[in-house]
Amino acid sequence: MKALVYRGPGQKAWTEVPKPTIQKPTDAIVRIQRTTICGTDLHILKGDVPEVEPGRILGHEGVGVIEAVGSGVERFRVGDRVLISCITSCGTCEACKKGMYSHCSDGGWILGHLIDGTQAEYVRIPYADNSLYPLPPGVDEAAWVMLSDILPTGFEVGVLNGKVQPGQTVAIVGAGPVGLAALLTAQFYSPAELIVVDLDDNRLEVAKAFGATAVVNSADGKAAEKVLALTHQRGVDVAIEAVGIPQTFAICQDIVAAGGRIANIGVHGKSVELHLERLWTHNITITTGLVDTNSTPLLIKTVKSGRLDPHKLITHTFRLDEVERAYDVFGHAGENKALKVLLES
Amino acid sequence: MKALVYRGPGQKAWTEVPKPTIQKPTDAIVRIQRTTICGTDLHILKGDVPEVEPGRILGHEGVGVIEAVGSGVERFRVGDRVLISCITSCGTCEACKKGMYSHCSDGGWILGHLIDGTQAEYVRIPYADNSLYPLPPGVDEAAWVMLSDILPTGFEVGVLNGKVQPGQTVAIVGAGPVGLAALLTAQFYSPAELIVVDLDDNRLEVAKAFGATAVVNSADGKAAEKVLALTHQRGVDVAIEAVGIPQTFAICQDIVAAGGRIANIGVHGKSVELHLERLWTHNITITTGLVDTNSTPLLIKTVKSGRLDPHKLITHTFRLDEVERAYDVFGHAGENKALKVLLES
Amino acid sequence: MKALVYRGPGQKAWTEVPKPTIQKPTDAIVRIQRTTICGTDLHILKGDVPEVEPGRILGHEGVGVIEAVGSGVERFRVGDRVLISCITSCGTCEACKKGMYSHCSDGGWILGHLIDGTQAEYVRIPYADNSLYPLPPGVDEAAWVMLSDILPTGFEVGVLNGKVQPGQTVAIVGAGPVGLAALLTAQFYSPAELIVVDLDDNRLEVAKAFGATAVVNSADGKAAEKVLALTHQRGVDVAIEAVGIPQTFAICQDIVAAGGRIANIGVHGKSVELHLERLWTHNITITTGLVDTNSTPLLIKTVKSGRLDPHKLITHTFRLDEVERAYDVFGHAGENKALKVLLES
Amino acid sequence: MKALVYRGPGQKAWTEVPKPTIQKPTDAIVRIQRTTICGTDLHILKGDVPEVEPGRILGHEGVGVIEAVGSGVERFRVGDRVLISCITSCGTCEACKKGMYSHCSDGGWILGHLIDGTQAEYVRIPYADNSLYPLPPGVDEAAWVMLSDILPTGFEVGVLNGKVQPGQTVAIVGAGPVGLAALLTAQFYSPAELIVVDLDDNRLEVAKAFGATAVVNSADGKAAEKVLALTHQRGVDVAIEAVGIPQTFAICQDIVAAGGRIANIGVHGKSVELHLERLWTHNITITTGLVDTNSTPLLIKTVKSGRLDPHKLITHTFRLDEVERAYDVFGHAGENKALKVLLES
Repeated sequence: MKALVYRGPGQKAWTEVPKPTIQKPTDAIVRIQRTTICGTDLHILKGDVPEVEPGRILGHEGVGVIEAVGSGVERFRVGDRVLISCITSCGTCEACKKGMYSHCSDGGWILGHLIDGTQAEYVRIPYADNSLYPLPPGVDEAAWVMLSDILPTGFEVGVLNGKVQPGQTVAIVGAGPVGLAALLTAQFYSPAELIVVDLDDNRLEVAKAFGATAVVNSADGKAAEKVLALTHQRGVDVAIEAVGIPQTFAICQDIVAAGGRIANIGVHGKSVELHLERLWTHNITITTGLVDTNSTPLLIKTVKSGRLDPHKLITHTFRLDEVERAYDVFGHAGENKALKVLLES
Repeated sequence: MKALVYRGPGQKAWTEVPKPTIQKPTDAIVRIQRTTICGTDLHILKGDVPEVEPGRILGHEGVGVIEAVGSGVERFRVGDRVLISCITSCGTCEACKKGMYSHCSDGGWILGHLIDGTQAEYVRIPYADNSLYPLPPGVDEAAWVMLSDILPTGFEVGVLNGKVQPGQTVAIVGAGPVGLAALLTAQFYSPAELIVVDLDDNRLEVAKAFGATAVVNSADGKAAEKVLALTHQRGVDVAIEAVGIPQTFAICQDIVAAGGRIANIGVHGKSVELHLERLWTHNITITTGLVDTNSTPLLIKTVKSGRLDPHKLITHTFRLDEVERAYDVFGHAGENKALKVLLES
Repeated sequence: MKALVYRGPGQKAWTEVPKPTIQKPTDAIVRIQRTTICGTDLHILKGDVPEVEPGRILGHEGVGVIEAVGSGVERFRVGDRVLISCITSCGTCEACKKGMYSHCSDGGWILGHLIDGTQAEYVRIPYADNSLYPLPPGVDEAAWVMLSDILPTGFEVGVLNGKVQPGQTVAIVGAGPVGLAALLTAQFYSPAELIVVDLDDNRLEVAKAFGATAVVNSADGKAAEKVLALTHQRGVDVAIEAVGIPQTFAICQDIVAAGGRIANIGVHGKSVELHLERLWTHNITITTGLVDTNSTPLLIKTVKSGRLDPHKLITHTFRLDEVERAYDVFGHAGENKALKVLLES
Repeated sequence: MKALVYRGPGQKAWTEVPKPTIQKPTDAIVRIQRTTICGTDLHILKGDVPEVEPGRILGHEGVGVIEAVGSGVERFRVGDRVLISCITSCGTCEACKKGMYSHCSDGGWILGHLIDGTQAEYVRIPYADNSLYPLPPGVDEAAWVMLSDILPTGFEVGVLNGKVQPGQTVAIVGAGPVGLAALLTAQFYSPAELIVVDLDDNRLEVAKAFGATAVVNSADGKAAEKVLALTHQRGVDVAIEAVGIPQTFAICQDIVAAGGRIANIGVHGKSVELHLERLWTHNITITTGLVDTNSTPLLIKTVKSGRLDPHKLITHTFRLDEVERAYDVFGHAGENKALKVLLES
């Protein structure tokens, strides 16, 4: 089969590789119908994630059709259409029993990372019963790809960790795909104000169209002042960090109100300065997290009922064998006004 | 001044009474600008609430202007426009410190019940600092009257006690004003399905306009079967009882899913049969409650931000001195298609 | 092998039956080392649980040694010593993903109920990875049998559902094994007062020895008055019902304070009267539940650390082949001063 | 009257000052019977809290007798014995309505900080109804002084923010008075392991006597390695920081398990390095907080019932007029083996 193979920092190729096979009774093989590229894939290609070895097939998102199942798989049969979770979960370890699938003792984020991933014609999914979800008949598969990672990440790590509540003032720092996923799902809880901060005016326009009540361009280094002005100097109840650099985490510290929460989604490459000399009296809560995808059943219900339209996040569509071109577009997201790029087999 | 005075079961009069005066340093006197009639007022007139003594001025909802304050009032001054909470709260007793203002040791629901109420030109409000809220400039006062009782009751006792969450299936049994208040505020949490049950097709039409995703007329005694059919026999995550009779509480017991919640808002005149022989294995939660109005600050924010439009609940408007006619209309709500009737001074 | 077989109401026999075998890849066969008898087993023998068919092997508690595993079992190997959970959990259905194993779509309480149980030399355990727990080396197996059902039931359905907190006043109505399990585990949360109500003075003595701060004999029908007197007429924060008859549920309604909780553990054979005409204003919460055993990992830690001594609940010990005599003793628990009777192979 | 007056960095005096008087209707004057010295008082004396102006009477803890009340005080009368909360709370602002008294818009920590404090013969307490608690007859007043600040701080900011649960592994970094207060109150929740880290072997001995299950001397810079070894490299569920310097906060980051919590109590003078490059995937929660004292009613119940013995924290007793000597002892706590020093009038 063909797959997108990582060849070491800066190098990748859509190339012929062996088709995956069942290795354990709990595995399934899925034929990929649609997949997408994540910001994390770009990090890997930059060499930022050294545990990814050359030869690895990238990708951890997708929908497809069951091609084969191991003898221990109970919930899926060949031919079933499935959503692939970016997180693999055994369902029985201590972490999984608590719903913290991201720290599954034999799973977590392994697809396109420690085992081969979904930017391929076929993928092997361990613990299929816990790591796949059935697609209802007739649904828009493209939209469902957004349920593999980007929407649960924005929702769990941003909105749920931030405990967004009706009437609150919420700021989202970063309007890339994951910030926008947080923006869409924060609206489940009817905050009064939803302020989005970014450097890119185009993304801020998208944020407004997606439901932001105010936007702040941070290019002048005055984002915190502007957010405080918008909140009568009170600050925000919830600040969601969706970038992953010290400057944006600093903005969150500057704008969080007493009693408020900072929910970090950003993938950080270095440490940040935490101003405990100021915040120790501030009664705040800071959370971090890799997505657990334990909210997937909830999100599926919101999509089915029309409360959430994941399709909004898709700006470009390519054939799966055009994946290298798709990487180019997504890798220059700003100039291409790209959010998520869809790959279809 | 003039006020609506209870004269014993079935009797009331808009009549001249002494104007209230400050009795304790924490009191305020409010000149009523707008008030309304509650279903509870009808119960009192029927004689169902025997602790209400003849001579009592009725009413526990309203907005107005501060006419006088005691020496201990710190947050309000003469001339301030205020929202009157239906619940009086001292703010310092054990119940108030927990936010359970309904059980304030020197307050709770006393207006128009144990002390004179708001269907009058003036009203005395004890513990004014805790029991009044400032009206922002320029707001629609009519809408704000809905924040005195009906909206916090539907929200706290129905939606918050029911712990409505995104993606859930919720049924509201009873589409009177409080059921509709629950319907409006349940949408803060983006449930997937919002099923409303009532005997009256007009009210069910209103429910649809207010956001119900399905409606069930219970006149044929088959409400539970119909709700189960709508939920693939699974039942609902949350059943909100907004009537107060054994039959409607029975429907809730029949439709609640395993792990679900029944939030009782209804004012019950007699006991109900609880089917523990069936429900003991069902992992359900049943809640009861008088409103605390501790959600008023939150609701104010949702109204200010446009997430909630309380005006929808108002179907009729009268002058305050037409209050007896307003009672006639509200007392025959069905034939008059009445929800809340507004009284304006 | 030998097993205790239900032969229809009132009839049982320790008799020869076929040894169980692996039926699905996720099954394990366990050789029973220790088991016990539950009050539910007595209900079954009375014919109160009609879905139990004649021929069924009774029992849903025990510890033992793995004799065989299916090909899909990952966490256990032949020879492992294990605790058997009374609840079977597939780990992947919607209920299991929420931790509500009692309502597992292919499990729940099935042992000794819908499939053969543990009062036998061998038992087949479906979904072994999720339904068994490894025994650490050197532990007291007798004590661990109490973790199969009685302790998680008292803890989850009584204490956790009751949300017992430090400083609270808690009443437990019923001092049988499950009430005492609630009494032991309620102390994890340091309530200020722990009042136990029962008809039997011996059990009340045991309750005192187990940590009750006050006991009330309810034989005179004045339990509620006595509890109210002990609480300065305020009532209790949490009332745990551990009997399962209308009279004891009525006591709970009479003694619960405003804002309090009633946690029902009792197995009810008929409906009860719920006094909503009084309780609708009382801001209370009533919970029901079959045990999920999702607290088993937590309870194991409290036993290992010495915070909980399950051995206290065991009053009698028999050989497994004396199970019929053990039933006699347990069936007349009052006169035998029996709590839990242990059966050892 | 006499009081301990701050005269600028490094300077203080027990000297004659005017007796306080009622300034607002909600004030009370309390004659101090017992007070104590807080670590924060030492910080003030070092000049670390610049908003404290010379001339200020120090101290924010104490019990005493009501000497006078304003006309708006409802819950206290002259002669009542009272506990003084270190936090002043108006009870009606937005923060107070949420129970976040530390951020009261007209209160918070002001005693001995922005207004005169309790190390004096008399003190004025604003918002007396919300900021004082009645002492039951016959209680040990010395023990109750520990309820003014040290116990609610350890409990709320350490234990409650840390969400300590039965069966967990908890580490407390710092065995000074506030760390020990966290140690005592953490036991309300029956954690399985309670590891205390400090530089001082004497304090570690005290920690063992107070319930620590293991202690770690951090003098060799290897505290984190030792804690990890004690937890089989898993780390702790809750790390409570009770020192306030970068090194101890770093230990907490090194030992917190995936899904765990860091509850910061320490008063920090400078920023710390937060290792988000490592912790972003770790699903942790970090909290900060000034004490709200909203747990005081709960703590009072635990003391009354004997679940908590605050007297343990008192190592030295002086007469109030010996306060300068008491400062010397407390200022060299290590060599004096001092925890809390009591001052009695």
